[in-house]
Amino acid sequence: MDDLELGLPVTVPSTALFTDQYELTMLQAALHAGTAHRRTVFEVFTRRLPAGRRYGVVAGTGRLLDAVENFRFDPPLLDYLREARVVDEPTLRWLADYRFTGTVRGYPEGEVYFPGSPILQVSGTFAECVLLETVILSILNHDSAIAAAASRMAVAANGRPLIEMGARRTHELAAVAASRAAYVGGFSSTSDLAAGFRYGIPTVGTSAHAFTLLHDSERDAFTAQVGSLGTGTTLLVDTYDVTEAVRTAVEVAGPKLGAVRIDSGDLLLVAHRVRRQLDELGAHDTRITVTSDLDEYAIASLATAPVDAYGVGTRLVTGSGHPTCSMVYKMVARASGDGPDAPLEPVAKKSSGGKLSVGGVKWAARRPDADGVAEAEVIGTGEVPGELAGHLLGVELMRDGRAVARERLDAARDRHRAARDLLPLSATQLSQGEPVLRTEYI
Amino acid sequence: MDDLELGLPVTVPSTALFTDQYELTMLQAALHAGTAHRRTVFEVFTRRLPAGRRYGVVAGTGRLLDAVENFRFDPPLLDYLREARVVDEPTLRWLADYRFTGTVRGYPEGEVYFPGSPILQVSGTFAECVLLETVILSILNHDSAIAAAASRMAVAANGRPLIEMGARRTHELAAVAASRAAYVGGFSSTSDLAAGFRYGIPTVGTSAHAFTLLHDSERDAFTAQVGSLGTGTTLLVDTYDVTEAVRTAVEVAGPKLGAVRIDSGDLLLVAHRVRRQLDELGAHDTRITVTSDLDEYAIASLATAPVDAYGVGTRLVTGSGHPTCSMVYKMVARASGDGPDAPLEPVAKKSSGGKLSVGGVKWAARRPDADGVAEAEVIGTGEVPGELAGHLLGVELMRDGRAVARERLDAARDRHRAARDLLPLSATQLSQGEPVLRTEYI
Repeated sequence: MDDLELGLPVTVPSTALFTDQYELTMLQAALHAGTAHRRTVFEVFTRRLPAGRRYGVVAGTGRLLDAVENFRFDPPLLDYLREARVVDEPTLRWLADYRFTGTVRGYPEGEVYFPGSPILQVSGTFAECVLLETVILSILNHDSAIAAAASRMAVAANGRPLIEMGARRTHELAAVAASRAAYVGGFSSTSDLAAGFRYGIPTVGTSAHAFTLLHDSERDAFTAQVGSLGTGTTLLVDTYDVTEAVRTAVEVAGPKLGAVRIDSGDLLLVAHRVRRQLDELGAHDTRITVTSDLDEYAIASLATAPVDAYGVGTRLVTGSGHPTCSMVYKMVARASGDGPDAPLEPVAKKSSGGKLSVGGVKWAARRPDADGVAEAEVIGTGEVPGELAGHLLGVELMRDGRAVARERLDAARDRHRAARDLLPLSATQLSQGEPVLRTEYI
Repeated sequence: MDDLELGLPVTVPSTALFTDQYELTMLQAALHAGTAHRRTVFEVFTRRLPAGRRYGVVAGTGRLLDAVENFRFDPPLLDYLREARVVDEPTLRWLADYRFTGTVRGYPEGEVYFPGSPILQVSGTFAECVLLETVILSILNHDSAIAAAASRMAVAANGRPLIEMGARRTHELAAVAASRAAYVGGFSSTSDLAAGFRYGIPTVGTSAHAFTLLHDSERDAFTAQVGSLGTGTTLLVDTYDVTEAVRTAVEVAGPKLGAVRIDSGDLLLVAHRVRRQLDELGAHDTRITVTSDLDEYAIASLATAPVDAYGVGTRLVTGSGHPTCSMVYKMVARASGDGPDAPLEPVAKKSSGGKLSVGGVKWAARRPDADGVAEAEVIGTGEVPGELAGHLLGVELMRDGRAVARERLDAARDRHRAARDLLPLSATQLSQGEPVLRTEYI
């Protein structure tokens, strides 16, 4: 995939500088020592879920495939590294030819995960794998955090559509990735045009308070909006007095008015009152959209309210209290010597700081109970027991440095829904709790 | 500033789609109604600081100037808007020629702010101003959140250098902006090469646990690293046993070893033990860097530890509990009619939902007490009292659509330090509290 296909405005010509300096200095030292080309396997996993969360959601995989394919050191980047004296000339020469040529396996996008799940496995020489740590973790940690929040909100909304509208609350490009991750997690649409442009996510939006304030009266504003956008539009009814605004809205647009939006106040109370008023005015099909600092709990509290859609901003794009995951990228195996046929041996950090890792290249399977409901995340490094062979979670994502698992975003969205539906019922409780599946190492 | 100057890899060809759809539909409706060209003023402000915070920090201003200058609808964007039926043909024609031609004033980057502070004022026609809402808020809300966390950490570090190393915990481009904002807030350097490339921030980094695990022994790894990076390098000493690693490190590098890094365990205890061991080994000048889930509180708790530098990741790039600000972009004044000379009149939303705004174009001044210490953030819409004329906070940032206040990042960093130093002493308490200055409206 070349740059043009990545499209404006979220293209970056190369992802190679989304890298912590120590990856390059390690490369230099390993090249110097002759150990850079040992075969290695790195795994992405997390030691724990965010406090109280029942499951995690893998997101960003599609972006990650683009990022790895576009990881190359173009001349301006090499010039910078030379001028900043980050690494020496032999290392710069090696970087000039860098392309990842290894293998990536992992949980497919949308899949759920638990503590210890081998979410991603990157195999290749130390030199080619070590460089990818930061960009891989940036993408997975950010996107998975948003998708997990989105999934909880989708559960709370119970089928009512969710609109992502948090662009203004996060970095402008993080926002585009957040829209994408929210869609994977179950959102229906976004206000962010860049997300529509880049990922084809349906976009929505009609007007803000500024539009009402621009005009000499609320009636003028509604008339202008309906005149241009049609009666199917959504009128914002809380700039001045909601009751008066709803009356004016139906007078201006007629009973076929598409929707009204409420952005402040006690949404439960106001939604009931507005529904009653709309029905009295004959606007039975006019929908009610609510937006105002919603999160999964506020959405759940509106389950009985006559609300037709939720717009969610801040709490979605900040992961509803958990804006990042704690995924790490750790070497779990390396060749026992320098030859191309030296066998892989497990490795792991062993200090006493509580950051223990499990060495070895892992497989993972989700074991179902007799009813087909998942009951454990089983992780091993040896042979896969026969009864788990049909339940393995990892798939091949890149082979010889090329993505082999690109898919439509809807496929990841559908996969997430299906994976969540196979978890025990307590997975979708919003209250704080333990991971809904235990992790078993065998 | 053209694209090339913006540089790789964080260039975006245009910022015009970092926009919520409703901005374009409002534009369409206003063009249709003939109200699009009324003169308006929009202000960015926040109704409150994050709970417990004593002051806010303006950051992202420099990025914002680039974003507004690069806000234009190139043909591929217009094609997308047409195909997705976001707006009609007359609106597309208007967008094709769009350039912001108005004025931007605001608090300069690095300045502190309080609830109600008019952080930014955008003046122009409704059409040209309304489109900028999302991109302006994205940048200010993200960058200011990071800078505020960085500032608290800098206070806690009390002069010891702080290294930004959170790239892996946030979106890959948010990370670059986070490095920049952290530098404004008082950090010294970053691990993120893209931030070094794009903004000239000093970069640092040497090695991770993977480097030790790659080698057949810790001694081999240290020998390889010192052989390539020199004795001034930083050796990571907590892969296996810290005491043994420190002994090996000094044996390999000699007493001129640059530094050791500790990334796990009870940092207070371990730092003391390592310092003692280094001194016993004659490595009196070898520094100690600590990194491991640090935040401002952990940093403060290490004030008496023999630590020479702090590396901070997750908690910095997630705003230490507050990953976004709650800045909003509200129309505060508009022309009372359609003519070019119609006077501006204040406007504000008036519904009862608690989201009150104060209408009118504001000035702000920070009033000092007799000792020169700030005692109030004074905000008004009328004439500036003579005694406050020398203490106004707003400056001109763009004139006729062109940036007039570009500056080196160090200028914003120095300004922040100076502004913080003029606040009452309680500003730098880490404990939860009220904003350290009250906001007075006159």
